[in-house]
Formats: sequence, structure tokens, C-alpha cells
Amino acid sequence: MAGLQQLTVLSGGMGGARFLQGLRHGIAAGRLPGVAADAEVTVIANTADDLWLHGLKVCPDLDTVMYTLGDGIDTDRGWGRRDETWSVKEELAAYAVEPTWFGLGDRDVATHLVRTQMLDAGYPLSAITEALCRRWQPGVRLLPMTDDRVETHVAVPDAESTSGRRVVHFQEYWVKLRAEVPAEAVVVVGLDEATPGPGVIDAITDADLVLLPPSNPVVSVGTILGVPRVREALVATTAPVVGVSPIIGGSHVRGMANQLLATIGVDVTAGAVGRHYGARSQGGVLDGWLVDESDADQLPGLHEAGLAAAAVPLYMTDPDATAAMAAAAVELVS
Amino acid sequence: MAGLQQLTVLSGGMGGARFLQGLRHGIAAGRLPGVAADAEVTVIANTADDLWLHGLKVCPDLDTVMYTLGDGIDTDRGWGRRDETWSVKEELAAYAVEPTWFGLGDRDVATHLVRTQMLDAGYPLSAITEALCRRWQPGVRLLPMTDDRVETHVAVPDAESTSGRRVVHFQEYWVKLRAEVPAEAVVVVGLDEATPGPGVIDAITDADLVLLPPSNPVVSVGTILGVPRVREALVATTAPVVGVSPIIGGSHVRGMANQLLATIGVDVTAGAVGRHYGARSQGGVLDGWLVDESDADQLPGLHEAGLAAAAVPLYMTDPDATAAMAAAAVELVS
Repeated sequence: MAGLQQLTVLSGGMGGARFLQGLRHGIAAGRLPGVAADAEVTVIANTADDLWLHGLKVCPDLDTVMYTLGDGIDTDRGWGRRDETWSVKEELAAYAVEPTWFGLGDRDVATHLVRTQMLDAGYPLSAITEALCRRWQPGVRLLPMTDDRVETHVAVPDAESTSGRRVVHFQEYWVKLRAEVPAEAVVVVGLDEATPGPGVIDAITDADLVLLPPSNPVVSVGTILGVPRVREALVATTAPVVGVSPIIGGSHVRGMANQLLATIGVDVTAGAVGRHYGARSQGGVLDGWLVDESDADQLPGLHEAGLAAAAVPLYMTDPDATAAMAAAAVELVS
Repeated sequence: MAGLQQLTVLSGGMGGARFLQGLRHGIAAGRLPGVAADAEVTVIANTADDLWLHGLKVCPDLDTVMYTLGDGIDTDRGWGRRDETWSVKEELAAYAVEPTWFGLGDRDVATHLVRTQMLDAGYPLSAITEALCRRWQPGVRLLPMTDDRVETHVAVPDAESTSGRRVVHFQEYWVKLRAEVPAEAVVVVGLDEATPGPGVIDAITDADLVLLPPSNPVVSVGTILGVPRVREALVATTAPVVGVSPIIGGSHVRGMANQLLATIGVDVTAGAVGRHYGARSQGGVLDGWLVDESDADQLPGLHEAGLAAAAVPLYMTDPDATAAMAAAAVELVS
């Protein structure tokens, strides 16, 4: 038996990218039980964080995955390019061009220039991503969840507005407001009408294993699940589906999911997020759910909800630790 | 008598920008006979060198004038920004994106991003140039010759082509081929249908003095003169029109006009270029023509052609020398 060949991962940015790094490391090192050493990884990446900035199409999650796996990421920041320069940003500020809160590095700008020009030439985002990956060789097949324009917006309080709120792009909420104001609602513009990107549904249907990394359950995995037919494909696939909790001990490890989970009425606990995804046997999308060892008290509730569950160390401190975590995820549904 | 108030200059890139620098210096220092100390300078800049590059609208002549007069130019290169970084260029090369022969610096890219985004938003190039100049404060009113897309192309020999030639953008001829192949023809696409930019015709008609700096007679001043109604406005204006030869002692001081002059059948001499522009009294556009002191032998031929002409030092070695040259130009038609 050659072992599992096709692994599919639904990923956001930083958390997903780091998980993928460990997953690939684990596969190459033969540390994932039952997974073939030449297993292929397909990544379905969130594109609802994408934005147009200074006339450029910026895809934060796609690029974070691509740069991380292609060894071009700035590991300290966790986003953007290593050895980055900031001349473009300085100059845009000198021109007093808004917005100034989203800093595009010069090396990063080149990626967006290539992408924007290809979009202008009529190529879909999926084909462009493939072209960019020819340089980066991330070692995975990287698929945008959709080629359509989908953008997450967040309603925040605004005393100046007659409605008492205003709606900002997710990146403005996340980067400019640092998620420090209450998110009253999350609206993913265009999601209902989006078509899954080429290969997305097949990647779920034909997978031997589907993984949900510790990405944001609302604005990363949540938006991927909201693309029409993706949830149905997850429910229907013969592959087991297993996820890793982004919440450890009541808080999000990286990023600021707390606010957003409250917006959709989900408690900020590893157990609540697992039950939010739900067991496939009960109309959900998961077979298994991995929580951190500090959240072992959540296991009974998860088992009750019909999920296979285990508590293991979930801090992705290095590729070895992350590979061990991926191995535990695989084991959970083996 | 307050002296001449409105000076209008038809300018290309480097040569024109350096001339303008000296002209402004001369005005401020009160060295231009008959010119008011608060005289206003309007620049009608060539835009036929403009190109779309990596999805960005690049306007080399407008930017060279703007950066030079706004003290942002790299004085060693004579184009682009001082303290420039080249990360975008490096990355585009890493993506194997063509063309690689036109190097956009990172700071420069910011200018093109602002311009391109404003074009996308529907602003005409003239309004965009005004907006960019709000930062740079070049001390002149900088007008694109037209808001329409006009692009100079050059036919060069190509043994591989069935026609024996191929047509390249002027920048490819100039920057990539370094004007080292014969230019068989110059075709300025869109010129015949172009409309003069806002203020262009008035700037000529209402001027007290019109100056032609030592810019390229074919692809800089030549294209400006080719914009419908510009030549007519020069012929009709009550202002004297005086030019400065870009050719000294049979060669172009900067740039590579030799090839292009041959293409339009003009000898590479200061006299031939002056006679090519021609005296307004004889259907041309000039009243006076300044040649270098080493070209004094050209004066009789110019006088014969109906032009006021004088031989003075034309090397723009520093703003003082350039101001003296501008003063001589003014004097020639006073």
C-alpha cells in the first residue's frame, strides 16, 4: 500500500502557511502515518482578504502561502518578503496617497504588478497564481478558492454615521483598526455568487485526506466554506476531514479571531470552534478535531458532538513541532 | 515696464529639463534681459516617449522635468530618482517578466502607480501631472502636450522579418538598442488625431516669449510641433520664438539625435536643424536660433534663411552657464 497520495488543505495566511510548511516537512521526513512520501498537497486558499491597493491586486493569503513555502517570506513579520525595501511606500506617503496603513514592500509590489498586469490581460487569478508559483516552487498546488472577486467587509461602530456604523474592508479592520473595535457584522461581498476556482471541488472530492489548518474560522476557512459547492463537496467526499484548532486556551494564537468569533456567535474555545465546524455525521464538515493539550477538558464535549478529537501540543514553534501536530491530525482519522 | 511675464518652453526630457533649470535660475537672479523677476514659465512637455510598462503608465519626459526642477532627480544618471532602490526591478527579473531593458526604480514606480491609478479613475494626464507637481513644486506650470495616447515608434532593420524591418517603441530603440541600428522611419502613432492638452495652445498664444530648448528636434520638439494646432499657434503668436541648437560641432550633446535627423533628411549640423525649424517669416516656427560658439560658421546660412542667430557657449555645465545661454536666447529676439 503506497499510502495516502492526495492531501488537500483549506488555508488562510500565516497560520495556514506555517502549518503547510510543517506538513510538507512531515511528508518528506516520512513522519505522517499512512501518508506516502511522494504525497501531493493541494492548497485551497482564501481570497476574501484580497484587496485593490494603489491600483494593484493584492492577495495576502495566496502570497503568504507562496512566499512561506517558496522560502521568500520575512519570517520575523510572518508576511511579506525577506530583505524587503520600502521605497514605494515612502514615496506614496510623500505624495499623500491613501491608504497609508497597508504597507506594500517593494519586492512585494513586483508580485502585485505581475498579477495585476495578467488580470488586465484577461487571465484568471488561478492561472496567475500558477504562473507566480513557477518562480516560487512552493511544492504544493496552490489554488485560489475562486477566480471571482470576493471581499470580506466588517461593520464597525461609527458615531459619526447616521446608521451608527460603517463598513470597512477586512484589511482595514485587521491592519488599520487592529481588530480593536467591535466587529458588529462580517459581510463577505460576492461570496454567494462566487464560482469555485478551477480544481477546487475536485481537490476536495478526489482527496485522500482533507485538512483544516489552524486558520481563522471566520474570515479564512469560513469564507472558503462559503464558496458555493465547497461545503457540499466536504460533506460528500470519501476522504476524512480533520481540523486543527486555532484557539488555544481561550485565545487565538496568532491573529485576532476573538472579535470575529463573537460576531458569528461562537465562543472563543477550541471546543466551540470544533462544534461550529461540526461533525459530518451531524451536518458539519469535520471528522476529527485536534485541540491543544491545555484544552483536554474540551474533548468530552467534542466527542459528544460526534467528532474524533485529541489533545496534543499545537504550538507551531518549528517545522518539527508542526509536523508532529500534522501527524497527530492524520492519526486522528486513520 | 515690468518686463516679459509669460515664458513658454517646448521641452523633451534631459536637455529640456537642464535648460529649464538654468532658465529658472536666470530669472530668479535677474540675468535675463527684459524678463520680469516674477516671470512665469509654462512647459509644454513631449509625451510621445510615454509607454506602458508592467501595467504602469510611464512618462519619461514629464517626470524628468518634474524630478529635475523639483530637486528629486538623480543628477548622475540625468533620469529617475535620487537615492533610488531597485527591488521591483530585481523581482520582475526573477519572475522573468519582459521587458527587462527598461529599469524602473522603486521610488519612480510610486509615481507611476499614482499616475496609473488616477488614469484608471478617469483623470486626464494633464490633471494628474498637476497633482504630481503639487508634491514636487517644480516652479513651472508643467503641461503634457496632449492628454491623448501618442507613441513614437521607430522602424529598424530586421532580417528575420518578411518586410525586412520591424517597428519598435521609441524607448526600445533608444534604451534597448541604444540607437545603434539605423532608424529607417519614425512613426508617431496617434499624433495626427491628438488634441492639444488643456492650456497648451493658450500658453503659446498668450506667451511673451517662446523658447525651444536643446531637446531632440525629431522625437521631442518634433512631436510637440506635430500635435495639431501647435505649429499654427507658434506661427501665429505675437511672442518671439527662439531656439537653442541641440547639435554642437556636428554631434548631439546628449542623446543620440544623429540617427533620427538622418531619418527625416536633416544634416547633423546646428545650421541644418535651425533651417529645419525654419523662420516664421518663411513658413517656419522660429524667429531666432542660437548655435554654439564652435558653430559660428553656420551663422551666415541661418541669417540667409531669415533667422536671427548668434553663436555663444551652449554647454549646460551648470545653472550659471545655462542661465547665460538662456539670456543670450532672450537677447537674440529682444
